[in-house]
Amino acid sequence: MNAHWVLTIICKDQPGIVHAVTGAIVAANGNITESSQFSSDDTGRFFMRLQIESNSPRTHLEANLRPVAEQYDMEFELDEVGRKLKTLVLVSKSAHCLNDILFRQRAGQLPIEIPAVFSNHADLASLAEFYGIPFESQEFGAAFEHMLRDYIKSAGIELIVLARFMQILSPEFVAEFAGRIINIHHSFLPGFKGANPYAQAHARGVKLIGATAHFVTADLDEGPIIEQNVVRVDHGDSKAELVSMGQDVESKTLTQAIRWFAEHRVLLDGERTIIFG
Amino acid sequence: MNAHWVLTIICKDQPGIVHAVTGAIVAANGNITESSQFSSDDTGRFFMRLQIESNSPRTHLEANLRPVAEQYDMEFELDEVGRKLKTLVLVSKSAHCLNDILFRQRAGQLPIEIPAVFSNHADLASLAEFYGIPFESQEFGAAFEHMLRDYIKSAGIELIVLARFMQILSPEFVAEFAGRIINIHHSFLPGFKGANPYAQAHARGVKLIGATAHFVTADLDEGPIIEQNVVRVDHGDSKAELVSMGQDVESKTLTQAIRWFAEHRVLLDGERTIIFG
Amino acid sequence: MNAHWVLTIICKDQPGIVHAVTGAIVAANGNITESSQFSSDDTGRFFMRLQIESNSPRTHLEANLRPVAEQYDMEFELDEVGRKLKTLVLVSKSAHCLNDILFRQRAGQLPIEIPAVFSNHADLASLAEFYGIPFESQEFGAAFEHMLRDYIKSAGIELIVLARFMQILSPEFVAEFAGRIINIHHSFLPGFKGANPYAQAHARGVKLIGATAHFVTADLDEGPIIEQNVVRVDHGDSKAELVSMGQDVESKTLTQAIRWFAEHRVLLDGERTIIFG
Amino acid sequence: MNAHWVLTIICKDQPGIVHAVTGAIVAANGNITESSQFSSDDTGRFFMRLQIESNSPRTHLEANLRPVAEQYDMEFELDEVGRKLKTLVLVSKSAHCLNDILFRQRAGQLPIEIPAVFSNHADLASLAEFYGIPFESQEFGAAFEHMLRDYIKSAGIELIVLARFMQILSPEFVAEFAGRIINIHHSFLPGFKGANPYAQAHARGVKLIGATAHFVTADLDEGPIIEQNVVRVDHGDSKAELVSMGQDVESKTLTQAIRWFAEHRVLLDGERTIIFG
Repeated sequence: MNAHWVLTIICKDQPGIVHAVTGAIVAANGNITESSQFSSDDTGRFFMRLQIESNSPRTHLEANLRPVAEQYDMEFELDEVGRKLKTLVLVSKSAHCLNDILFRQRAGQLPIEIPAVFSNHADLASLAEFYGIPFESQEFGAAFEHMLRDYIKSAGIELIVLARFMQILSPEFVAEFAGRIINIHHSFLPGFKGANPYAQAHARGVKLIGATAHFVTADLDEGPIIEQNVVRVDHGDSKAELVSMGQDVESKTLTQAIRWFAEHRVLLDGERTIIFG
Repeated sequence: MNAHWVLTIICKDQPGIVHAVTGAIVAANGNITESSQFSSDDTGRFFMRLQIESNSPRTHLEANLRPVAEQYDMEFELDEVGRKLKTLVLVSKSAHCLNDILFRQRAGQLPIEIPAVFSNHADLASLAEFYGIPFESQEFGAAFEHMLRDYIKSAGIELIVLARFMQILSPEFVAEFAGRIINIHHSFLPGFKGANPYAQAHARGVKLIGATAHFVTADLDEGPIIEQNVVRVDHGDSKAELVSMGQDVESKTLTQAIRWFAEHRVLLDGERTIIFG
Repeated sequence: MNAHWVLTIICKDQPGIVHAVTGAIVAANGNITESSQFSSDDTGRFFMRLQIESNSPRTHLEANLRPVAEQYDMEFELDEVGRKLKTLVLVSKSAHCLNDILFRQRAGQLPIEIPAVFSNHADLASLAEFYGIPFESQEFGAAFEHMLRDYIKSAGIELIVLARFMQILSPEFVAEFAGRIINIHHSFLPGFKGANPYAQAHARGVKLIGATAHFVTADLDEGPIIEQNVVRVDHGDSKAELVSMGQDVESKTLTQAIRWFAEHRVLLDGERTIIFG
Repeated sequence: MNAHWVLTIICKDQPGIVHAVTGAIVAANGNITESSQFSSDDTGRFFMRLQIESNSPRTHLEANLRPVAEQYDMEFELDEVGRKLKTLVLVSKSAHCLNDILFRQRAGQLPIEIPAVFSNHADLASLAEFYGIPFESQEFGAAFEHMLRDYIKSAGIELIVLARFMQILSPEFVAEFAGRIINIHHSFLPGFKGANPYAQAHARGVKLIGATAHFVTADLDEGPIIEQNVVRVDHGDSKAELVSMGQDVESKTLTQAIRWFAEHRVLLDGERTIIFG
């Protein structure tokens, strides 16, 4: 049986890229099973994601791609389709996002493995335990971040998910792991930044509330948006009901963002994301 | 055949209101065919909307309601179900909202009559003419507002619709017709206030764009929200495509807000709207 | 602090009902905090649901309502707002619906208590156990139904939820608990009845797939519909992906139906449901 | 300025196609600006749609593609991006779909030109006239189809749109123009086939109603589905209200299907459509 590869490419937009890349693939007996591309008018960059079946070893495929990458000054990344991304989940007290992630991960619907869940509270320990995942809690602060950084490096963490973590990571930490930290904000950004968005939404009397999964940057609630969803509310919904209805949207939105990221479907184009969904 | 009435009531929330009001209706041989009510925790106000079939004359119904209204210090309004509200539409150059309003009004789907369309440009004259509606255009400014005010009063206009009018009415004008001017803003407020929201949405990389129908107040884009809708967009949609996709959402949202207003389904609760949809 | 009651009423549509009912409530010092009503043109029946705050004891409220109920030949039901309905959940091997129900029940978002989960397979025992709920499994058949009937009666079960149970209950059983068994069908009924709806949906090439929560009747997949939702799919989604995407819709739809039922928001009007959502 | 081409390809799935096709494009100085592809597991066919900017003449591009097409036994079609497809619209008495098509066509949002509107009734003559489009009406029957066939051939019609035409074309006619006739059915197929779907939907008590744009085949309401949408309804919506709410969904769905077809985004894979949206 052939191996199945996912290849992502970013470079300056220019003619001939697709032909050159597919040439390298054909030469490795590769068959393209999925393909997406995008040329950004905003930044002049070209983005491509391919899935490739091939009986060639990885080294052969890479050896063929390397000269093309040099010629076009490409960043490229090659991974196995379905390989489970090492994902660290940070939580606080709210269970809904973590529950959704763990349920789907176990159901085989999320290509990630979760070596640990870290928290600033002990509340969700039993939920993690039910899914057989080590859980650590300690007060948030410089020591927490220090521990986090060490763990990420020693465990080879590839994705950090803030599943309603509710703490603000330091700019240094955020910069170090740029493009690898995904947060769920409980509003339809850019509306209702900051704390207590459901109370803001209630006060403003909006007719839809939403949630936004985004990359974390030093600019709070301003990082590139990966996914958003909304749900209809009305004047009769209390703040508590907005919170409850919003939780569904939060879980769904965060889980979708994680899935796309783990499948290498999320590429960065300046302040915006390309989603090859 | 019986007449069909719509009754809306606003007063301080207190026990016994529904019984007292329905007593007045029963005494006028009224049968309640539709009923909605809401008690606002935010303002302590009570809101009710009833539809009533009755063979009694309007004066009889009103005479029965008046002592109840006094007892409970109610504002109440009685209207015939389906009576066409006198509606003035203001437009600029964009046709999509006007087209939707006129088509549905003629199709019998909007209980309004439109004695005139006013504009600061002549572009949409032929569209209004096709639907047999007088169209006036003149440069926007103090004289325009003066003409508008005179017309509203002489023609007995009950609702003013800004169907992508794109001009800012004076605070005095807005205050004078408070609660009777509906605007469509081409973004999902409170995100992307002000000019060119689709360009802002593109730059921010949001995954859903929307439109907001709201009452106009002196605070630009801050008036009570009546209705909102969104549509999914992706990284590949250019600013021009956002505009085009957004137009559908704008028309639909504005038309819905007009329908609800004309059917006396929109009540004001401070900065928020109650929609008895 | 006052008690909070929910009152549902069904009778022949006729003038004076609301006034008479609210009179009985006023006489018991009741204040109506939520009200919905509907007159069915199809069956000529009148439906009402009220929430009432009152410092009177239940017996007083009932004593006041009884003569009104007799006069208008009403069925009425009075319950405490938020009282947890005794709910039995039947499952087979699929975990997604059960997981959603148990998570939300524990999170306080579903006003039910679940004294037991029954199944024809042992697969979901540990999930029930994590939530501290007794789990029984035995082969499906006459003995299973017998055990079920006994349990329902002895435990005072008020609602039976088929959370992807995948077995066909006998007509006798279904008739005995008519209006109290809710099933989730994994298609947008009336499309794709029967087995394997996702395979049917794939073959037909539909662009949206859905799920339907409905009351179980002897007519398979034909019982009154309580709630439906859909999700967009495309040509690239395999049967397995339809199943996975559909699961979200199934959970959400079933949980919503349970919530509405437990809050006495679902009334039957012949083959259709009235939802006072 | 370069020309902008759209190329669609269908052939048996096999390795090397993309490389071969892009090679032909590179050799004609082409730059790929948009690309979609799909390998069908159901039929083993490969589908691709490319947009290409090139300063080469059409003949050059075609000459390069022809040997590749022969080698891989491809059907391919090359067209100019944005060329207006010659589209004939058939209507009966309902205006909503025609109004939407004509408005968007004039607004530049639909890449079609409409040389004529044909009908079996005169009702929509003035609407067509407002948009300056010739309108013909005559009784439906064999003579109507004969006239239709002659017109389609003499005018070079590429797409026939049944915009709530409500007449059943003969199997011979349908076969002759297979894959070029799009109909809007006013239900969410496969639910509620045949006449009066809104009455069926009301009787069944569904919670969402929908519309389906599909290719017409001899099997009524069974042709390949292009697009579907739904809208939420409730027990209080009468049959007339379902009709009115459904009209919005019908217009939107049909217009979207026309746009995709005109942009060569709709390919046929047996009984299913591939939509490169």
